Amino acid sequence: MRGERKPLRSDMGCSDATNIRVQGLDLMRDIMGKLNLGDFAFLEIQRRLPTPSESVVFNAMLATLVEHGMTPMVIAARLTYLGAPESLQGAVASGLLGMGTTFAGTAEGSARLLQEALSGEGAEVPDDALGSLAESIVRKLRESRQPIPGIGHNLHKPVDPRATRLFELAAQHGLSGRHVRLMQEIAAAAERALDKPGQLPVNATGAIGALSSEMGIPWRLCRGLAVIGRSIGIVGHIAEELRNPIAREVWERTEAECSSHVQW
Amino acid sequence: MRGERKPLRSDMGCSDATNIRVQGLDLMRDIMGKLNLGDFAFLEIQRRLPTPSESVVFNAMLATLVEHGMTPMVIAARLTYLGAPESLQGAVASGLLGMGTTFAGTAEGSARLLQEALSGEGAEVPDDALGSLAESIVRKLRESRQPIPGIGHNLHKPVDPRATRLFELAAQHGLSGRHVRLMQEIAAAAERALDKPGQLPVNATGAIGALSSEMGIPWRLCRGLAVIGRSIGIVGHIAEELRNPIAREVWERTEAECSSHVQW
Amino acid sequence: MRGERKPLRSDMGCSDATNIRVQGLDLMRDIMGKLNLGDFAFLEIQRRLPTPSESVVFNAMLATLVEHGMTPMVIAARLTYLGAPESLQGAVASGLLGMGTTFAGTAEGSARLLQEALSGEGAEVPDDALGSLAESIVRKLRESRQPIPGIGHNLHKPVDPRATRLFELAAQHGLSGRHVRLMQEIAAAAERALDKPGQLPVNATGAIGALSSEMGIPWRLCRGLAVIGRSIGIVGHIAEELRNPIAREVWERTEAECSSHVQW
Amino acid sequence: MRGERKPLRSDMGCSDATNIRVQGLDLMRDIMGKLNLGDFAFLEIQRRLPTPSESVVFNAMLATLVEHGMTPMVIAARLTYLGAPESLQGAVASGLLGMGTTFAGTAEGSARLLQEALSGEGAEVPDDALGSLAESIVRKLRESRQPIPGIGHNLHKPVDPRATRLFELAAQHGLSGRHVRLMQEIAAAAERALDKPGQLPVNATGAIGALSSEMGIPWRLCRGLAVIGRSIGIVGHIAEELRNPIAREVWERTEAECSSHVQW
Repeated sequence: MRGERKPLRSDMGCSDATNIRVQGLDLMRDIMGKLNLGDFAFLEIQRRLPTPSESVVFNAMLATLVEHGMTPMVIAARLTYLGAPESLQGAVASGLLGMGTTFAGTAEGSARLLQEALSGEGAEVPDDALGSLAESIVRKLRESRQPIPGIGHNLHKPVDPRATRLFELAAQHGLSGRHVRLMQEIAAAAERALDKPGQLPVNATGAIGALSSEMGIPWRLCRGLAVIGRSIGIVGHIAEELRNPIAREVWERTEAECSSHVQW
Repeated sequence: MRGERKPLRSDMGCSDATNIRVQGLDLMRDIMGKLNLGDFAFLEIQRRLPTPSESVVFNAMLATLVEHGMTPMVIAARLTYLGAPESLQGAVASGLLGMGTTFAGTAEGSARLLQEALSGEGAEVPDDALGSLAESIVRKLRESRQPIPGIGHNLHKPVDPRATRLFELAAQHGLSGRHVRLMQEIAAAAERALDKPGQLPVNATGAIGALSSEMGIPWRLCRGLAVIGRSIGIVGHIAEELRNPIAREVWERTEAECSSHVQW
Repeated sequence: MRGERKPLRSDMGCSDATNIRVQGLDLMRDIMGKLNLGDFAFLEIQRRLPTPSESVVFNAMLATLVEHGMTPMVIAARLTYLGAPESLQGAVASGLLGMGTTFAGTAEGSARLLQEALSGEGAEVPDDALGSLAESIVRKLRESRQPIPGIGHNLHKPVDPRATRLFELAAQHGLSGRHVRLMQEIAAAAERALDKPGQLPVNATGAIGALSSEMGIPWRLCRGLAVIGRSIGIVGHIAEELRNPIAREVWERTEAECSSHVQW
Repeated sequence: MRGERKPLRSDMGCSDATNIRVQGLDLMRDIMGKLNLGDFAFLEIQRRLPTPSESVVFNAMLATLVEHGMTPMVIAARLTYLGAPESLQGAVASGLLGMGTTFAGTAEGSARLLQEALSGEGAEVPDDALGSLAESIVRKLRESRQPIPGIGHNLHKPVDPRATRLFELAAQHGLSGRHVRLMQEIAAAAERALDKPGQLPVNATGAIGALSSEMGIPWRLCRGLAVIGRSIGIVGHIAEELRNPIAREVWERTEAECSSHVQW
């Protein structure tokens, strides 16, 4: 081994026989019975308690991510649970793994776009120039043929009602700042650039990306918010699978149809 | 394909262009801005909103499961994140997979024990016979050389302060019923049977198993509560890993020492 | 930190600028171009090269585990790939997680049964007493209401042709010893005890458990053989999914039917 | 449900009571006892048996991917196994999930680069123009500040001996075609462009990307080859962990040092 090694350190939590400390707080006295699960998640990620306003908005953001009906990832989780009911953690893990670029990438993408645009030199952009900043962002993305994250939805039209509600809550709680404003300007600029008026509003993941940015959550962690929400949703689907199983039926139908052309 | 097939049905959630319904509620109106994340988890698992008392106790149960410091599962998650930072969901899944029988099985085990003991004929056992029921349970487990789930802790002695706090909250909120009572009687009976007075109190997972049973949560889902809590904790550890990484150092030290005996 | 720590050591593989050693062999000279993948798997698990006979039989054992058609686990893997095509490793992991007690536990179970029966005192049992040992094993399992691992199959009747072929190969290659004999005696004893003549032959996992035991592979690793085989099969299904996708169709049908009763 | 649905179909495998067909072959007659595991993997991915030459080279490619010593992913798998030894599949899955962009992306990357360069119009490029094609590829990648996949290695210098051996085997077996040639020209062009003579040879993943392309394996599946190899390696590490465990020690050291600064 090399002589020089980086010391390992963590401040997440520790305990002795009678004490348990989490993020500097006393688990029994300061957290249990006082903090709801969303606030605890905020504490874990941000190392401080949320303000009352942040608590409302952060819990609402997570609420948009819990339950999306019969998605590919919950079907996968149910199929995995069918095979390994003794390892519920494996079924949840199996479902979470479907959270990739096809369905779940854009909160991360829009948060990154906003955070990179409004940090460094971007921090100096005056508020009344956010519209032209949005124009330039949209232009550059289109020139490099990249998608514009956080806008439009195939089902929710002309607006995504979750984004509307999130922005409403943020405004009521004083959390509607420059990142929200820029996200909205980007949607408007995209509608003009693509000549699709009223068709590319900010969607739920765009709103979550913007509000995460308002709260100082790094874009690399935005997918983590979705993971937290979906892990709850997947456990909910396993609860329903116990009451009213569908996995075996989905499997048997699929297997039968897939080999229905086989001749022996 | 067979002609007769079981119809597929789910009541978790659904949506059209302007509406999103989750468990029969309107997501934007009834949940966002109103329900905290723990209450939403209760709704997903139990298909109804928690009472105010259940909300306090359920959030406290989940709170005991979020953060346990530098466990094997968070080290695994950090190592996985090192290799695949673009797939945060994979790092969380990797960590969850360590939630097996070694560390996390007993909430499930104690809930199962309590639910099986107090259902069917057990539902008829009068309250003042719970002590002798506990005696008989402990005797049978010892005779078949099975562990007694939900009691004792290698670090937290003479009591597990999380169990103390959970039972206190349950009592304050009218949720301390027969399952809690039986769990406590089992601990007392085990201390007598093994002649270890004051050394085998109910631990955190025993308390969670008992309180889950009070709320009617099936024992098969108790591991799901731990999965929900830990998925939040793992995202928290990834947040810390971004600020102050340790995975590469753990890897390099381990690799170097593991092959330090090799001669070329 | 405690002063005394256990040293960490591994002999799996190591390298410097010009050498790569795996299990004491030179990767480029001794393995690449010489060892097939099944033999390499044997080397990894057993720390020695297989004999030519072991090579044939071990590759045949793995071959029974690669491809089982449209199982729940490959459907789960395909659904996961749909959501996260950029993380193929996640799709394979998702599929592997369905390899639990419902479908894949019995090779482990039968290997454990055989290894425990024929080690310790069991090593002294004379060959002509294996039949009565089998009788006693079946009797004890039935008395404790446990399933008899490794026998019977819902589709392959009256015999499992994979077991037949595995035992044939083992006999041809001198690998048909006491574990194989005991497994066959257990099947015969079970047919007598349950009065199901010709209906409970050794199945594929029973044969794999027996042959693993002949080769000295610990029962705890038998599920690992299945994991190796299935990981190849899952990659094969992802290859087919790229050519002829079915995951989206399975998802859309399931989602539509599951909410077809919803009224807005 | 919509009236029109895409039919589901698969040709991977199917069975009835006495037959099992895989990729159109009879499992017992054509595969078991005849095909080694690497050849079976080729069959699963390519839907045809490999030629004898392809068999040697493909098994050698997989051999480079099995065992890389004490990597982050095998440490993660060992830690997961510590927590859930009853779910070996979870430990393997946990390890596989670390196979992301940090360590394992470049076979995919180089295969994609080569396949895109030599298909379509690129198929018309004469052999003696491959050098200038390589020059132009390197120039474009450098202009867009993208890494050049498949060249250089931090430890194996001045050449990666695995690439040398793979190209040697390919040449001996008539599998050294235009993709191999272009990969080698890219390495040479990169050395000239970056003025690093003898320092950026083709590495193992570059060679695997090139040889996969020679065999017609789509670049999207190249990560699958690594997944197959590593799943074998991870099972091997779990075998060693059973004989000589290190996970608990790694955990306890890490946990102790991480909280050594905490004061109560």
